[in-house]
Amino acid sequence: MPHIITRIERAAPADVTALAPFGSATIHEAQGRLGALSSRIKPIHRSMSVCGPAFTVSSAPRDNIMLQLAIHYAQAGDVIIVSAGEYEEAGSFGDVLGNACMAKGIAGVITDTGVRDTQELIRLGLPVFSLSKCIKGTVKETLGQINGDIVIGGQVVRPGDVVKGDADGVVVVRREDAAEVARKSATREEAEAGFIRAYKEGRTIIEVCDLDAVLKAKGLTTDL
Amino acid sequence: MPHIITRIERAAPADVTALAPFGSATIHEAQGRLGALSSRIKPIHRSMSVCGPAFTVSSAPRDNIMLQLAIHYAQAGDVIIVSAGEYEEAGSFGDVLGNACMAKGIAGVITDTGVRDTQELIRLGLPVFSLSKCIKGTVKETLGQINGDIVIGGQVVRPGDVVKGDADGVVVVRREDAAEVARKSATREEAEAGFIRAYKEGRTIIEVCDLDAVLKAKGLTTDL
Amino acid sequence: MPHIITRIERAAPADVTALAPFGSATIHEAQGRLGALSSRIKPIHRSMSVCGPAFTVSSAPRDNIMLQLAIHYAQAGDVIIVSAGEYEEAGSFGDVLGNACMAKGIAGVITDTGVRDTQELIRLGLPVFSLSKCIKGTVKETLGQINGDIVIGGQVVRPGDVVKGDADGVVVVRREDAAEVARKSATREEAEAGFIRAYKEGRTIIEVCDLDAVLKAKGLTTDL
Amino acid sequence: MPHIITRIERAAPADVTALAPFGSATIHEAQGRLGALSSRIKPIHRSMSVCGPAFTVSSAPRDNIMLQLAIHYAQAGDVIIVSAGEYEEAGSFGDVLGNACMAKGIAGVITDTGVRDTQELIRLGLPVFSLSKCIKGTVKETLGQINGDIVIGGQVVRPGDVVKGDADGVVVVRREDAAEVARKSATREEAEAGFIRAYKEGRTIIEVCDLDAVLKAKGLTTDL
Amino acid sequence: MPHIITRIERAAPADVTALAPFGSATIHEAQGRLGALSSRIKPIHRSMSVCGPAFTVSSAPRDNIMLQLAIHYAQAGDVIIVSAGEYEEAGSFGDVLGNACMAKGIAGVITDTGVRDTQELIRLGLPVFSLSKCIKGTVKETLGQINGDIVIGGQVVRPGDVVKGDADGVVVVRREDAAEVARKSATREEAEAGFIRAYKEGRTIIEVCDLDAVLKAKGLTTDL
Amino acid sequence: MPHIITRIERAAPADVTALAPFGSATIHEAQGRLGALSSRIKPIHRSMSVCGPAFTVSSAPRDNIMLQLAIHYAQAGDVIIVSAGEYEEAGSFGDVLGNACMAKGIAGVITDTGVRDTQELIRLGLPVFSLSKCIKGTVKETLGQINGDIVIGGQVVRPGDVVKGDADGVVVVRREDAAEVARKSATREEAEAGFIRAYKEGRTIIEVCDLDAVLKAKGLTTDL
Repeated sequence: MPHIITRIERAAPADVTALAPFGSATIHEAQGRLGALSSRIKPIHRSMSVCGPAFTVSSAPRDNIMLQLAIHYAQAGDVIIVSAGEYEEAGSFGDVLGNACMAKGIAGVITDTGVRDTQELIRLGLPVFSLSKCIKGTVKETLGQINGDIVIGGQVVRPGDVVKGDADGVVVVRREDAAEVARKSATREEAEAGFIRAYKEGRTIIEVCDLDAVLKAKGLTTDL
Repeated sequence: MPHIITRIERAAPADVTALAPFGSATIHEAQGRLGALSSRIKPIHRSMSVCGPAFTVSSAPRDNIMLQLAIHYAQAGDVIIVSAGEYEEAGSFGDVLGNACMAKGIAGVITDTGVRDTQELIRLGLPVFSLSKCIKGTVKETLGQINGDIVIGGQVVRPGDVVKGDADGVVVVRREDAAEVARKSATREEAEAGFIRAYKEGRTIIEVCDLDAVLKAKGLTTDL
Repeated sequence: MPHIITRIERAAPADVTALAPFGSATIHEAQGRLGALSSRIKPIHRSMSVCGPAFTVSSAPRDNIMLQLAIHYAQAGDVIIVSAGEYEEAGSFGDVLGNACMAKGIAGVITDTGVRDTQELIRLGLPVFSLSKCIKGTVKETLGQINGDIVIGGQVVRPGDVVKGDADGVVVVRREDAAEVARKSATREEAEAGFIRAYKEGRTIIEVCDLDAVLKAKGLTTDL
Repeated sequence: MPHIITRIERAAPADVTALAPFGSATIHEAQGRLGALSSRIKPIHRSMSVCGPAFTVSSAPRDNIMLQLAIHYAQAGDVIIVSAGEYEEAGSFGDVLGNACMAKGIAGVITDTGVRDTQELIRLGLPVFSLSKCIKGTVKETLGQINGDIVIGGQVVRPGDVVKGDADGVVVVRREDAAEVARKSATREEAEAGFIRAYKEGRTIIEVCDLDAVLKAKGLTTDL
Repeated sequence: MPHIITRIERAAPADVTALAPFGSATIHEAQGRLGALSSRIKPIHRSMSVCGPAFTVSSAPRDNIMLQLAIHYAQAGDVIIVSAGEYEEAGSFGDVLGNACMAKGIAGVITDTGVRDTQELIRLGLPVFSLSKCIKGTVKETLGQINGDIVIGGQVVRPGDVVKGDADGVVVVRREDAAEVARKSATREEAEAGFIRAYKEGRTIIEVCDLDAVLKAKGLTTDL
Repeated sequence: MPHIITRIERAAPADVTALAPFGSATIHEAQGRLGALSSRIKPIHRSMSVCGPAFTVSSAPRDNIMLQLAIHYAQAGDVIIVSAGEYEEAGSFGDVLGNACMAKGIAGVITDTGVRDTQELIRLGLPVFSLSKCIKGTVKETLGQINGDIVIGGQVVRPGDVVKGDADGVVVVRREDAAEVARKSATREEAEAGFIRAYKEGRTIIEVCDLDAVLKAKGLTTDL
């Protein structure tokens, strides 16, 4: 049965705010290498970055009626994320809907199908992540679900989970783990800053990463 | 028989001028969702845009002799469009031929194979659309046709038809339909401007797109 | 046996310097259309360019321990080039290792798997060429070889060979041929400059490329 | 945390038996066009067919230690189904493990990576469904989970759900829906048998599918 | 406007009969290397072969209403050929429609999207050529055209043209060229039979293909 | 310079004979997981198997003149293996050349481009491995090399190396390692037979593969 759920439990705003500054790769590592969507889903411009609670949509391929409805029912700050069958040859979202999103304060749109009017969307400043850029229109025939669990890019995304996207791709964090993952991301980033300082001071990778013991255990030999 | 046709019936210049300002997606919608080439064919830089009568070339894969001849016989304002077998691993066009095009006032080049010297081409300012960017050279062995009907990106393009390309991809308009499609594109763009204004004024998608009746007919339910 | 060779015969610095200004497509042509890697391997930003002796790495897919070791053992000016199984869904290199490379003066990194932290890498200014941009982490389990001959993008690269990468892709030049290929590249570029001048002066392709005899021999006809 | 769950709630054996005779496409339709995995996952021979409760495995790409453990802990009649990152270039399962499965009465194996020893597996008579056939070996380094929910081919599969595979691909049925889907599959098959009879008796598609009203509503015209 | 044309000019039956015995590759060569569809379109079993006049369909991706109508309006001996957007993840044709085709004596079905119930179709003996085998159902919403010119697999197919498919793929022959192409195919096959006899008698390729002069002209050297 | 080398050092016939019975996956494992070509290169029928010394060809994409010459110069028992640019849309080899190979006793043909007349080739009984099955013809224009080192499917193959292909794909063994790899393959096959016996006797994978210690070290937990 096609059904729209509007009352979802979103990740705590403070947790979203805490996660937002970290890169998608850092978050992925911080939560134990989980949650990265397929690398085929990318921003339409590499400068784009988004972080917010997922407002999930499942839709037929080449049909954007559920995406329209999602814009209607989503809140400011939400990231609309659409599972639409990994179909490259459809442009399911463009500048008109982009303006609708901007008017409502939608944080961004992520989809596993195509989008169009991409230059206008870039100018508009709305973060949009997609499988392709495609001219071809969609129909508005088949109802789907809003705010059920969806599968996109090989990952399950639940409504209210945090999704973070940037030039490297998109990662999902369970809403109940968001606070902890933000903390671990900070810890990881500090550690990485330390590594970077060490490299700038001229220390070697074998020192910094403490590789000597590992390499001996594995039987590595060199010509030195 | 390899044959070169030079005398083609081009779309009326006024129609080309009328179509040029519209985005490829708008034109595609305005003519009833027809004419969009495969989304795999894209500009080598997203800022590129081209609109002009098609000067068509059919060529063997990995062979650019017909593309050279097309540059010879095309007129200022023409868009040279080459069907070359959807082969990614060939660079059939580069900065030398790019300069030849610029010297003649060719409006742009579209191909379903690769191009090279892409940074130089971007600097040159010639709009170039291709399947890939590829270093590998081509041969000059097999003759093909100039200004026959071609198939490219899943569409038939006839000599003199209008091709419009931008960041979203490429669309073809039959030369005899160009004036009407330009009018319909203008109508559509006005309608879209109206939608955008409505969204900026805070109206909802369900209102703007008049979705209520449709959704009831389809049996949609919500938790509201 | 996993083994690290550190003492390699690098192309003469003067030859690297001589090759560096030429585009990858020019070099490919100058050496007889040899050495171009698959067009799927591209810079993470089109402005990137690199030229230097290859410091070769063979690694298991989704494993970056050998890349870390390569950074340890490579010299300033080297281009680390990694064959890792053409796997798109792994981010084997990011900004921490990028800083390690910068600290050592590594000229660039080329890999047939993914990289991440791409915006940071672009800001850092390190030329990085890869098959994909991917969030997903790698393991550090399986040893491979450093400075053996590798296969990457369908080409053999030997340690010390010159690799040149730019927006069009990557080409390899045998270290013993580097001087001659640089000379031939210069010759070719002069010839191309001559062609470009001719086109700017209004000469036609059939004149410039002396196509008339060829076309007659092949039986080409026109409607002129 | 890597963890193995062995106590799962399997679909009722009677429901599995009831579903087994139906084709994957029939089941997919009968449950409202849900549950079909990506068409890239196919049997290694078109004659293969499997139906049973899912024994789910999540594994690192190019690593089969969790698949080995799954064979250890699965029961006779289970279908081991492995999510391993959609990686084509790894052969994670072959005739030795195939014999281990046969000895335990495992009903079949489904994976989104490659398998090898395919001729031996065909001779053995074990239904095996995979993304590819690939020689290359895997490692046994990274632990994953057994009997968590997995994503494979764009679908969530939960332990104990019914998976049915045949020449057309693989479909998953929720264990709690299995009885009803079996009933609906029978109803659908009867309806299809009726259609087939009607066609054999010479009735037309427009009659059998009652298309006239639909076509008039949509404005279809013909030259008759 | 969606429109169905039923009155088409079919290739002469005698020409279809004359072409039928030749392999698709022979026909392709005999007509000057024209007309081969993309190699991605293949029979669902390698033993399948079809030859007949094209009954063309253009359809929205993931929508089979026009294919149903084509079965209604096609004649015995026709090959229904459907352009549906090169979409792999849809099963647009199965055993029920297969029976409808058999009842009418349709010669075969060719499509650039997926089909299902493939084992049943193989048993039925109807030649079916497709881009994929896929479980997923289609909708019946969007009208298209019957017996307009279509683009499929990179080729234009007109209604009434002859299409021949076998294990190697599908080739189209213009209806007006069918008789001549059949003659040339026979000539080619005789020539090939002569080559085969020559090889069986122990003559070498250089003799049989008269390569010596060519190789000398191209400057080939050997170590003999 | 195009050049043909005919005098190559082939692997010892006894070593070829010793390797022939083993599956490609077994050989790949026995030599330390080296030498497997891309899984995209497969036999045109799964029953095909070949083993012999490599007679190597490097050719332009869509050009088969060097393959013709290779048939001329190869010896009975040789496997002709052609690197032709990983191009799917060309049929470089068919039944006429297949008969030429059979007449000379060529053991098989392996190529990274397409072949055609596949049903005839299957009937002929010549093992043929390719990237695709494709109707489209090739030209005979560009000379390449015979019996240089080639790259195919991501591997270097040298003339005289042993190549073994079967349903799983193709693996290359250095000619100087062939005897040792045959011995190790036998050892591995005996070990595998022992594993299979153990499974048939009802022993578990954890016992047979001695996994307990490993799993404890990695911290695996279960619900048992």
